[in-house]
Amino acid sequence: MIRHTVAFSLRHPHDSAEETAFLDTARGLASIPGVQRFEQLRQVSTQSAFRFSFSMEFADAAAYDSYNEHPFHQQFVADRWALEVSDFQELDFVPLEGSSRLDTRGAG
Amino acid sequence: MIRHTVAFSLRHPHDSAEETAFLDTARGLASIPGVQRFEQLRQVSTQSAFRFSFSMEFADAAAYDSYNEHPFHQQFVADRWALEVSDFQELDFVPLEGSSRLDTRGAG
Repeated sequence: MIRHTVAFSLRHPHDSAEETAFLDTARGLASIPGVQRFEQLRQVSTQSAFRFSFSMEFADAAAYDSYNEHPFHQQFVADRWALEVSDFQELDFVPLEGSSRLDTRGAG
Repeated sequence: MIRHTVAFSLRHPHDSAEETAFLDTARGLASIPGVQRFEQLRQVSTQSAFRFSFSMEFADAAAYDSYNEHPFHQQFVADRWALEVSDFQELDFVPLEGSSRLDTRGAG
């Protein structure tokens, strides 16, 4: 499992029509083969200025490579991301070896 | 749902015993009431120097506040995090209004 995330901010005014249009178009990324668990998120920590994040998962590196090479992704990056994103940070994750997800519900 | 994440690097040499000890102790955070889906991750994007991340979810702000105030968390931050982490970035997320997680498996 590879989780690909990118936190970002847009050049558009907050809550503008342009902001909404960017986010709506980006939802098309979810339909690229191999993309799993696609999420659009609002970033709310006061310790970062980033306003949004996209998160998605891939079964393996080959699926991630396919995504990167897919025409919709490449066009989205060239036509929309490059022009409308003011700042971003990519962070990609794999499970830490020897750890397992601790799915506690925190009883007590 | 609030997803609390922190990407970070440690002062310890890579793959050292001290690095392993820090990560092992941190797994105790998963047992704090309200913590859901606790994960320890390795950060693998070449666009960031952060080596690790912790990710967890809370049902609401009250659960997140309880976590922040829990003695184990406060002691971990004061006794371990403050001394052993060289750099970190907190990013917290809530679902974007009007979006839903697009759980596609990318058929095709």
